[in-house]
Amino acid sequence: MPSQLNQEQLDHYRADLLEALEDGDTERVQRFCDEELAPVEIAHVIESSPTKVRELLWQYLDEEQQGDVLPHLNDELQQAYLSQMSAHEILETTQDLDSDDLADMLQQMEPGVSSQVLELMPPSTRAEVEGLLAYPEDTAGGLMNTDVITVRADVTLETVLRYLRRREIPDHLDALWVVNRNFGYVGKLPIVKLLTHSPDTTVREIMDSDIEGIKASTHEDKVAQIFERHDLVSAPVVNDHGILLGRITVDDVLDVIRESADHAVMSMAGLDEDEDTFAPIVKSSRNRAVWLGINMITAFVAAAVMSQFEASIAQIVALAVLSPVVASMGGIAGSQTLTLMIRGMATGHINRDNLVWLIGRELGVGALNGLLWAGVIATITIIWYSDVYLAAVIAAAIIINLLTAVLAGASLPFLLKSVKIDPALSGSVILTTITDVVGFLTFLGLATFFLL
Amino acid sequence: MPSQLNQEQLDHYRADLLEALEDGDTERVQRFCDEELAPVEIAHVIESSPTKVRELLWQYLDEEQQGDVLPHLNDELQQAYLSQMSAHEILETTQDLDSDDLADMLQQMEPGVSSQVLELMPPSTRAEVEGLLAYPEDTAGGLMNTDVITVRADVTLETVLRYLRRREIPDHLDALWVVNRNFGYVGKLPIVKLLTHSPDTTVREIMDSDIEGIKASTHEDKVAQIFERHDLVSAPVVNDHGILLGRITVDDVLDVIRESADHAVMSMAGLDEDEDTFAPIVKSSRNRAVWLGINMITAFVAAAVMSQFEASIAQIVALAVLSPVVASMGGIAGSQTLTLMIRGMATGHINRDNLVWLIGRELGVGALNGLLWAGVIATITIIWYSDVYLAAVIAAAIIINLLTAVLAGASLPFLLKSVKIDPALSGSVILTTITDVVGFLTFLGLATFFLL
Repeated sequence: MPSQLNQEQLDHYRADLLEALEDGDTERVQRFCDEELAPVEIAHVIESSPTKVRELLWQYLDEEQQGDVLPHLNDELQQAYLSQMSAHEILETTQDLDSDDLADMLQQMEPGVSSQVLELMPPSTRAEVEGLLAYPEDTAGGLMNTDVITVRADVTLETVLRYLRRREIPDHLDALWVVNRNFGYVGKLPIVKLLTHSPDTTVREIMDSDIEGIKASTHEDKVAQIFERHDLVSAPVVNDHGILLGRITVDDVLDVIRESADHAVMSMAGLDEDEDTFAPIVKSSRNRAVWLGINMITAFVAAAVMSQFEASIAQIVALAVLSPVVASMGGIAGSQTLTLMIRGMATGHINRDNLVWLIGRELGVGALNGLLWAGVIATITIIWYSDVYLAAVIAAAIIINLLTAVLAGASLPFLLKSVKIDPALSGSVILTTITDVVGFLTFLGLATFFLL
Repeated sequence: MPSQLNQEQLDHYRADLLEALEDGDTERVQRFCDEELAPVEIAHVIESSPTKVRELLWQYLDEEQQGDVLPHLNDELQQAYLSQMSAHEILETTQDLDSDDLADMLQQMEPGVSSQVLELMPPSTRAEVEGLLAYPEDTAGGLMNTDVITVRADVTLETVLRYLRRREIPDHLDALWVVNRNFGYVGKLPIVKLLTHSPDTTVREIMDSDIEGIKASTHEDKVAQIFERHDLVSAPVVNDHGILLGRITVDDVLDVIRESADHAVMSMAGLDEDEDTFAPIVKSSRNRAVWLGINMITAFVAAAVMSQFEASIAQIVALAVLSPVVASMGGIAGSQTLTLMIRGMATGHINRDNLVWLIGRELGVGALNGLLWAGVIATITIIWYSDVYLAAVIAAAIIINLLTAVLAGASLPFLLKSVKIDPALSGSVILTTITDVVGFLTFLGLATFFLL
């Protein structure tokens, strides 16, 4: 089994695999699943295939393989496949999984099914999984796994080493966690230190006690920031009383960053980050219809504003031609500011202290670019329509709309966040509505007032 | 020094620090820099402050602190501060840095300065750094650092352990790399295995030989995919002949993912991912003016199309009011498809094999939503203008524009990529230009043909 296919290899393998599927070449497909592709790669092929091919491929996997592949699939597909299985089958399929993968998957199931699965589990596993289920998926508690190795501060490295030889070691083990007799977290013991210090040193002498435990209630984005800032490979998770609950490993943090990145990009287009690129037509259409509908409403709001000036437009048709220019310039300027603010809030660079300064800064930027482009657009208007007054009006409208745009773009994210609305999702719609309305209103309004 | 400040704590500290700066309370500021804040946190405070405060704060740091803080600053600030230093000062400041951080920083300097700095370096370091500078920043070679520990396959673990005790250990050490006598990479030896196997086993018996080395020329995005798929903490980098060059650690991969995420979001607004949220007004204005200019041109292209129908608009002013609705619906539908495609290409889910299927799928989605919203918008038009023919025309225009939009959104990323243009940056502009033009053209064209 090749351990690290790069994209070209993977595409190549997938092409062969799909060909084998079409030819109904059972043996070759089987060989792919059994030998040539790792579970994570099978998952990738399934994710990048249409539904029909997916179903076909899934059937070729035996229960154990399905169990290995499942955790690598996106939530939507996990749900789909799990919903086809009975509680027994699910248990069979998932018995070799880590407790945290298991917990994540249970959260994908119907409450009825998941409770059945829990009941069927061996008590020890169930207790562990139920413990994890207690924490929301997007918190440190939801990210952590419980396979930690703990030691006491007063023992010697020799004791630790003897202990380690006797038990199996979880992957990504980069450190042991030092706890007191009440399982309170006291420090981190990087295993490298086990190699480089003499066996008779005690854990206390060499443990890092300056690594604080992460509260289980900490939001996953904050967890990611901590990992990024301090280049951690794993971190301890504690409850409010400092009791060690588990550890978070960097591979889960990678997923968090990837997902929040997806969310930022996808939500700008009104899409869910789990949006399945290969979902059937009807399903995708439904997902996207909502966003189209919302934007249609905002478009008609703008249209309604414009229609108030039909009389003016009838007299000076140039107004109809130039209005969209005024509106779009505002939209662009606003979205630039909005994007900067949302990113700055995500990285924690923007806070109450520097917000006011920032808004002032943005207004300055808006004014400068407003003046610049007002000049350019006025010039173009004069050349095009040889009408100085029209040019003056559009110039004024551009400046006003750009100032409004940056002001809205800078303040919206905070306003939305304070009312618990996701700025990445709704920010751009609200912004463009504002810039369209203000753009049409100022340009057509000023024109009606001064040119007629 | 608190090792893991979370955002609240950090904001709190920053507030105090800024207060101290304003009060000119030198001692308190000094105490912050020396004891209370880690370099990475000082960097964060500097990044989230206006230029004046930055300068002030930077002066409080002694050379060593400046050296610790520098690598945590964004490229733009690194450049700014490095450009103020002489080659000697730079060397002083950066002498304790890892070779890869040093190489990254040299790439930020004026060629003249960086070559001076290189000359001043001790030969060994210089050779190392020059080796790293040979690789582009966005490849595996550019990501790797050279502080690897290598062992031979035929030695026993005891020998390895004795060797480790004698040398200093790089951070993030999770594995040793097994090489042959020509320094050819043969396998990975997780240090955990050093603990759990008896000292007289040979390296060959327990090394992982199925972890392939990553070619130095591999693009960083592919490196990130490999780390994500296989939950790696570190990976070996090799040249075309399989010679071990260095290793990539997961903390650098975190940065890659974060940056490519930033790039995706920022470039949608025509911003550079390094765009400094706190840069002075003039600087920011310049950065954003370009994008506003490009979008102005596209807006005027659309306006020019519309102006071809001024006669029609003069007769039916409703056309002016409704045109933007047709254009915007196309823009939204197209951007949804565009976003999905760009994401799919980034994750490697979309390739030549399934592209055709996908375009067909998108056309289906476009058709369904086209019919749906054509119906809705036609109805609104009838209610608003009680004109069935106008309604029929706008319905037809909506369907045509939505189909064009998804087709463009699905094919643009590939077309742009094949001519080496970044779809994330230019995709949305080109798309909206298409949807605006097609929207105006079909709606006003059909109206002129059927309604006049």
